[in-house]
Amino acid sequence: MIDVAGVRIGGDAVVVIAGPCSVESHQQLLTTAVAVKKAGASMLRGGAYKPRTSPYDFQGLGIEALKILREVREQTGLPVVTEVMSTEDVDVICEHADMLQVGARNMQNFALLRRLAMIDKPVLLKRGPSATVKEWLLAAEYLLSGGNSRVVLCERGIKTFETETRNTMDLAAVALVRELSHLPVIADPSHGTGKQSLIAAVSRAAVAIGADGLIVEVHPCPERALSDGPQSLDFAGFEKVMRGLREPLRQLAPSTPEDFALGAQA
Amino acid sequence: MIDVAGVRIGGDAVVVIAGPCSVESHQQLLTTAVAVKKAGASMLRGGAYKPRTSPYDFQGLGIEALKILREVREQTGLPVVTEVMSTEDVDVICEHADMLQVGARNMQNFALLRRLAMIDKPVLLKRGPSATVKEWLLAAEYLLSGGNSRVVLCERGIKTFETETRNTMDLAAVALVRELSHLPVIADPSHGTGKQSLIAAVSRAAVAIGADGLIVEVHPCPERALSDGPQSLDFAGFEKVMRGLREPLRQLAPSTPEDFALGAQA
Amino acid sequence: MIDVAGVRIGGDAVVVIAGPCSVESHQQLLTTAVAVKKAGASMLRGGAYKPRTSPYDFQGLGIEALKILREVREQTGLPVVTEVMSTEDVDVICEHADMLQVGARNMQNFALLRRLAMIDKPVLLKRGPSATVKEWLLAAEYLLSGGNSRVVLCERGIKTFETETRNTMDLAAVALVRELSHLPVIADPSHGTGKQSLIAAVSRAAVAIGADGLIVEVHPCPERALSDGPQSLDFAGFEKVMRGLREPLRQLAPSTPEDFALGAQA
Amino acid sequence: MIDVAGVRIGGDAVVVIAGPCSVESHQQLLTTAVAVKKAGASMLRGGAYKPRTSPYDFQGLGIEALKILREVREQTGLPVVTEVMSTEDVDVICEHADMLQVGARNMQNFALLRRLAMIDKPVLLKRGPSATVKEWLLAAEYLLSGGNSRVVLCERGIKTFETETRNTMDLAAVALVRELSHLPVIADPSHGTGKQSLIAAVSRAAVAIGADGLIVEVHPCPERALSDGPQSLDFAGFEKVMRGLREPLRQLAPSTPEDFALGAQA
Repeated sequence: MIDVAGVRIGGDAVVVIAGPCSVESHQQLLTTAVAVKKAGASMLRGGAYKPRTSPYDFQGLGIEALKILREVREQTGLPVVTEVMSTEDVDVICEHADMLQVGARNMQNFALLRRLAMIDKPVLLKRGPSATVKEWLLAAEYLLSGGNSRVVLCERGIKTFETETRNTMDLAAVALVRELSHLPVIADPSHGTGKQSLIAAVSRAAVAIGADGLIVEVHPCPERALSDGPQSLDFAGFEKVMRGLREPLRQLAPSTPEDFALGAQA
Repeated sequence: MIDVAGVRIGGDAVVVIAGPCSVESHQQLLTTAVAVKKAGASMLRGGAYKPRTSPYDFQGLGIEALKILREVREQTGLPVVTEVMSTEDVDVICEHADMLQVGARNMQNFALLRRLAMIDKPVLLKRGPSATVKEWLLAAEYLLSGGNSRVVLCERGIKTFETETRNTMDLAAVALVRELSHLPVIADPSHGTGKQSLIAAVSRAAVAIGADGLIVEVHPCPERALSDGPQSLDFAGFEKVMRGLREPLRQLAPSTPEDFALGAQA
Repeated sequence: MIDVAGVRIGGDAVVVIAGPCSVESHQQLLTTAVAVKKAGASMLRGGAYKPRTSPYDFQGLGIEALKILREVREQTGLPVVTEVMSTEDVDVICEHADMLQVGARNMQNFALLRRLAMIDKPVLLKRGPSATVKEWLLAAEYLLSGGNSRVVLCERGIKTFETETRNTMDLAAVALVRELSHLPVIADPSHGTGKQSLIAAVSRAAVAIGADGLIVEVHPCPERALSDGPQSLDFAGFEKVMRGLREPLRQLAPSTPEDFALGAQA
Repeated sequence: MIDVAGVRIGGDAVVVIAGPCSVESHQQLLTTAVAVKKAGASMLRGGAYKPRTSPYDFQGLGIEALKILREVREQTGLPVVTEVMSTEDVDVICEHADMLQVGARNMQNFALLRRLAMIDKPVLLKRGPSATVKEWLLAAEYLLSGGNSRVVLCERGIKTFETETRNTMDLAAVALVRELSHLPVIADPSHGTGKQSLIAAVSRAAVAIGADGLIVEVHPCPERALSDGPQSLDFAGFEKVMRGLREPLRQLAPSTPEDFALGAQA
C-alpha cells in the first residue's frame, strides 16, 4: 500500500484520480478539482510539462502550472500528481506535487528512472505503449532497486492494429501484475481508449478486474481543451463514471428451466 | 435478443456457456455438463471439429462428438454450441447442435459465412485474432445480409507483442460493439488469456463492461485435456468464476478527510 | 523447386507473377497479360473469387473469370494462378488454372487445406496477416502431410499499428523461411504495402533478401479497378518495377580517406 | 546529405557503421575497429551508456568508454557514434564522439530531443519500437525546429506478435521516409532481427530498398559479449555481410519459352 499525502493506493478501496490533461489556468483547475472531488475523486491530476508528439503542439505551462497545482491542492485538499519528463525538472516538481508520474513514452527513460529512485515522493509509472508486462515490471525495478519503494503502476493501453480506439486497453495485464508483483496498479481509461463514450464502461471493468484505482481526464469544456479533448469527460460525464462504479454487476441467467434427473446419469 | 433453444442472449441477464475445448468421451462431457450446470451455466460448449495449428495435433472426434453433444443436451437440458469449420459439415452439425460457432480463424472464411447465412440456427461469430472491430462487424454482415439474423458476436482476444498471455483481451471492443451494433456480444476469457489464473478476473471485467455472456473452457481434469489444457478450468475453478460474478465491485475510497471551504472558491 | 506448367519457382531465377486483382473482362485480362509478359513476367495472376471484407463489395466474376483466365493462358502461354476460397470450388478451378492460391485470410482454413492436399496442382500459400512464421509453416504442413508436395509460400505483410502502409511487409520472414524450410517463398509487395509508390523499392528488397519470386497487381487503369486500385500498378509502373530488378545495389562508401598505421596498433 | 567528420550520409554511396554493442575495453574496440575498417566500414559504433531493460544487467562503462572511443577514433580515423541517454551526459559525449545516437526507447524523450537540438553535432535518431513513421518524423522535427538540421534517421524494427525475430524490420518504412522527408535514413539489421543468421540478407534488402547506410553490431567474440551477443557478428560474419552488399540481384526468369502470336490478339 502506497500513501500519497494521506490517500492510500493499494488498500481496500479504489482511489479515483481525476483532472485535466493540461493545467490551463487557475480557474480551469479549481473548477475541475471541486467538481471531481464532489463526484468522489480523491486525488487531482494535471499536466504542467506535456509530452507532445509534435513540437508545434501546446507543450504545457511549466512552472506556472506547478504553482496552480499547489494552490488548488491547498484549496481542495486533494493530493496532486503531475508528469515529470526530465531529470532537470525533478526538484521543482517535488516542491509542488505529491506524486510524480512517469509517462508511457518515458517508461524506459532509464536516466529519469534512476533520478526518481532517489526522491522522497511516490512515483506513478505508466506502462509504455509497446512494453510487455515484464519490461514494465523491470522498469519499476529501476525505482525499487535504486531506493524508492513507493511505486504505483498504471496500465494505459498498448498499441495494436485496432484503429477505432486510440490504444487497446490490456485489462488482463492488471490482473497479471497483481499475480506477479506486490505493487499497486491503477488504470487509465482515458488514454486507454481515447473515446469519451467508452470511459464509463472501461472504468467499471478495470475495477472489476482488480485495479486499485483509476486516473481519468476531466475538463470543464472538453471541446475547448488544449490537449486530449476527445478523451476528456465533462463534469456530468465524470459523475456518470462514478455512479457506474457503484452499480452491481448484471445478474446471471438462470440455468435451464426444466429439471433433469441429473443425479441418475452423472 | 437471440433465442438459443430457450436461452436468451442479449436480454437482461448474463448467459454463461461452459464446457470442454474438445469432446473426448460421453463420460467426460456429461460430467462436465452436470458440474457447470450446477455452478450456474446455462449452455454447453464442446468441440467436435477442432481447428489445430499443426496437422499432427488432435483434430477432434467429428460426428462421434456431435452425437455425444446431442445426448448430453438431452440428459441435461443445456443447449449446445459447437464449431463448424467447413461448408460440408454444416448440415450434420445443424442436426445435432443448437448454435454453430465460427472460430476466430474462420471469421473471414466468406464461403462458410455465406453458407451459414442460409441455415435456421443461430451463429456465434468469434472475432479474428487480427481483425479490427469494423472487419468483425462486416463479417457479421455476411450472415445478416444473407438472411440469418440470429448472430451473436464473441470477443476472444487479439494478437499483440505481449507474450505472458496467449492473446490480449480487447474488452473495450465489447463496449464499442454495443455502441455500433444491435447484436449481442459475449466474451471468451479462456482463449483471451490462455491462463487459468486470469479467467475469474477477466470474466468479472467482461460482465462489468457490458458483455451479454461468457464462454469458458472447463474440463474434469485440465492437465489431461487433449487440447487447451493450460486455459481450461477444473470444476472448482469454474465455481470460483461463477461466485466472482456475483460479488459487488470494490468500494471507492472516500475523498479527502478534511473539509475545505470549497463553495467560496469555486 | 516447384514446376508450374513449365515455370520453375525456387530455381536459379526470380519468377515474376503479375496481373489484375480481379478479372473484369477478357479485354482487360488479355491486355494486361500481354503487357506484363512483354515487361518480363512469367506467370499471370487474376482473381475469380474475391475475399472481400464487406459483402457489399464486388465479389468477383466466378466461373466466367475462370474461363477468361484459361483463354488468356492459351493466348499468351503464361501459366495462371487464381485464388480458391471454398472446397466446393476446388474442382472447377483445377480445370482452369495452373496453380491455386490460398489467400491470407484462409491460411488456417484447415478444411480447405485438407482438400488442397489431395489435388494434383501446385498451391501458393499466403501468410495470414497475423500468423507467425511457425504457424505459416504448420499450415503448409497440412498440405505436405496430406500428400501435396508442390507448395510455394508467399509473404504478403502482417498487421501492425503502422497506418501509412496497408500492412507491414515482414521481409526478414522471407530470409527466415529459407533457413527453416525447403519450400520456395515469394513476396507480394502490392498487399504488403498497399501503395503504388512503394512497390518498386519493396520488390527490389524482396529479391535482394532471397525471395524466389514476386506477385504484383497490375491493371490497365488502376483508378477504374473494381478492387485494390490504390495498390495496382499501370503498365508503365510495372515496367519500372522490372527495370529496378535489373539494377545493381548502390555502391559502398570508401572507408576513411587518410591512411592510418593500423598494423602497428592492432 | 549529412557530414559526420568527413563521412557523408545521404550521398551517392552507402555508409556502413559497425562496432560492438558495448565498449568493453580498449583492446576489444581497437581490434573491432581495425577489422570492420578493413572489411569496408566507414564509421565506428560503440555503446558507453547502455539502455538496459533490467537494472541488474551491464549498464556500460560510461566516461571510460567515451575515452576509449576517442582514442580508437584517433588510431583508425573512423568517426564515432555513441548513444546518449540523458541530458546530463550531452556535453561530455559531444567532447568525445562525432555523432550522438538517440536510442529507440528515447525517441519520444522530448527533453533530450530539445537539448540535442542545440548542439553542434549530428544526431542519429532511431525509430521507437512502436512508433509510427509519422511519430518518428515528428520526433525529428523536435531537432530540426530547435535548430539542429543534421539529423539521420534509423529504422531498427518494430514490435509485433512475431517471436522468431526480436523485432520486425519495417523496410518499407525506409522507402516511405525517402518519399516523405529529405533526411537520410539508415537501417539497423542487428536490432531489427536479433539473429546473426539474418543480418546479411536484411542488410542487402535495406540497401536495395534505398537505405543510405547500415549500422551493424560486430564483436571479436559474440558469445562473450556483455550485451547483445546473439545479434552480434564476428569478424568473418561481418566480412560476409560486406561481400553480400557487392553482389548483384538474382536474375529474372525468362518469360514463357514458346512464342505466341500476341500482336494479333491484343
